[in-house]
Amino acid sequence: MRATIVGLPFHDSTIELAHGAGGKASRRLIEGLFLPLLMNPMLAELHDAALLATGHGTLALTTDAFVVRPLRFPGGSIGELAVNGTINDLAVSGARPLALAAAFIVEAGLSSDVLRAEVEALAAAAARAGVPVVTGDTKVVEHGKADGLYIVTTGLGFVDPRLRLGSGFVQPGDRVLVSGPIGDHGITVLLARGELDLEADLVSDTRPLTPFVDALTATAAPGLRWMRDPTRGGVATALNELARDTGLAVVLEEEAIPVRDAVRGACEVLGLDPLHIANEGQLLVVVAPEWADAALAALRSVPGGQDAACIGTIETHPPGVVTVTTAYGGRRVVDMLVGDPLPRIC
Amino acid sequence: MRATIVGLPFHDSTIELAHGAGGKASRRLIEGLFLPLLMNPMLAELHDAALLATGHGTLALTTDAFVVRPLRFPGGSIGELAVNGTINDLAVSGARPLALAAAFIVEAGLSSDVLRAEVEALAAAAARAGVPVVTGDTKVVEHGKADGLYIVTTGLGFVDPRLRLGSGFVQPGDRVLVSGPIGDHGITVLLARGELDLEADLVSDTRPLTPFVDALTATAAPGLRWMRDPTRGGVATALNELARDTGLAVVLEEEAIPVRDAVRGACEVLGLDPLHIANEGQLLVVVAPEWADAALAALRSVPGGQDAACIGTIETHPPGVVTVTTAYGGRRVVDMLVGDPLPRIC
Repeated sequence: MRATIVGLPFHDSTIELAHGAGGKASRRLIEGLFLPLLMNPMLAELHDAALLATGHGTLALTTDAFVVRPLRFPGGSIGELAVNGTINDLAVSGARPLALAAAFIVEAGLSSDVLRAEVEALAAAAARAGVPVVTGDTKVVEHGKADGLYIVTTGLGFVDPRLRLGSGFVQPGDRVLVSGPIGDHGITVLLARGELDLEADLVSDTRPLTPFVDALTATAAPGLRWMRDPTRGGVATALNELARDTGLAVVLEEEAIPVRDAVRGACEVLGLDPLHIANEGQLLVVVAPEWADAALAALRSVPGGQDAACIGTIETHPPGVVTVTTAYGGRRVVDMLVGDPLPRIC
Repeated sequence: MRATIVGLPFHDSTIELAHGAGGKASRRLIEGLFLPLLMNPMLAELHDAALLATGHGTLALTTDAFVVRPLRFPGGSIGELAVNGTINDLAVSGARPLALAAAFIVEAGLSSDVLRAEVEALAAAAARAGVPVVTGDTKVVEHGKADGLYIVTTGLGFVDPRLRLGSGFVQPGDRVLVSGPIGDHGITVLLARGELDLEADLVSDTRPLTPFVDALTATAAPGLRWMRDPTRGGVATALNELARDTGLAVVLEEEAIPVRDAVRGACEVLGLDPLHIANEGQLLVVVAPEWADAALAALRSVPGGQDAACIGTIETHPPGVVTVTTAYGGRRVVDMLVGDPLPRIC
């Protein structure tokens, strides 16, 4: 559906935090180092999940490493995130989760109670989503060689045959919807580190997106073109990838984008744009214009989706670029995240 | 096929290296902490891979975290190990590998050349095994927070319908075969750390076991009862699990067990038993007696399998125990690994 993209060779001499932050540096690493070596058509798609046609339906497979710091934050923890994040990669690929695998890398000296709490959180999130954890692995590294706990989860699902999703289906005139307020997760985790002299009444939005996708599929399946879970790099990065892949323009209305006051306030103090902040429970959808109202109603019908909004339109100009129209009628370009203001956010 | 096993509650106050070494402490952690929280019939089987009946054949899913230290050692490296180890978990489950997922946790400051070399090694191993890496993830953690690189791979495959494998099929009189000399990988990695005043002309046995399983399936499928990839904890741990699960005795002939002189010598100096040392390219098989000759010939027909041997028999007494008969007619019990002489071996 999408042209194979291999970027310029990767010439940075060392790997730095920004290479893991989901923005431009990550993209350069993936396209310049990983893709040329591991080249195959499925990987080159760079979707949230790989799709494998099996003759008995299409399987979706996705893997994610979770290294969030701190392990617990308001509204969630690494164990819950590790389940929801992977289920969400399946969900936005149009796949119904079938099973999860979980690998734990534990630092020697970690309190067993901390590990138990995270396995409990992971088990509870999996039970809530109705997906069994069917296999796992545990490794222990020396004290000082991991910080506490890393979790890698892999999700397997079958793609819903009613859905045809991909940037190749996106057309001028399509609408861009989001399921709710953006930036809650990233700002919550950043503040939970206690390194900034800032407080806010915020919790992470970590949750499974499956109910949103189910509601959309039930009422607007033929109109759905593209879905994404805007985690690292935020809404801006996901939409920049869409603009780049399609050569189309994404034009956002700033006034329409739901952002909580606490997130907006923290972003202003920190010099960040809420569009760059990670979400762990928001769905971005591109939908055909005639299905936009039905899709928006479907999102709003799901608990937690009452603030869903239509935030923009796909246009032809400027090609390959995301812009946002401000309340005063101005227009600015929204680029991908360049630096790394928010390492270890998931 | 096997009774659900949940052990005593896990009461250790902290997680230590031994909990990741694959022996008794690992088993206590898995059975006492993970299983009660994540309980489901598939996980409780504790097989190398979970088997998922889909109505269109049985899928096998397996995940493994690789934290080997050093990253490169004679005969292999973490990237190659991460592919072969996961393919081998599928192979011993009777599954043909379909796709791999790979997650990388990279320490900030790692040389890009080191990362590139490991992605190359991973890509080459995947190409050699004919299995595509279809999806991945990369996270970067601060300098000092991982040592260099951890890789988690997940493998997906379809189970060969000709095979019916599991400890429940094992019967008294069955033969135990091994594909070649044991202990090469563990001793090679241990010596590669340079912490011991020992040298040996040894290389890791890391390799895909698929050719062994294919040869066995082609010639002795009806006689195959159980297969295992004896990595952490070695042959002794794999066979103790079999003895415990079946309540049968595994009686080994010490003289018949292939062990290279260099491994035997290093083990004598270090006070280790080769039966406890990790392998990354050996297959343990239990086969019905009337199929043992055909199975042994099949193993020996595969390049690298010329030293395959029949090393023991399944008996009824002593129940649940592994014993080895020595050259002098003595008999000793071979227990699971208790301490942790070999951390970070894979």
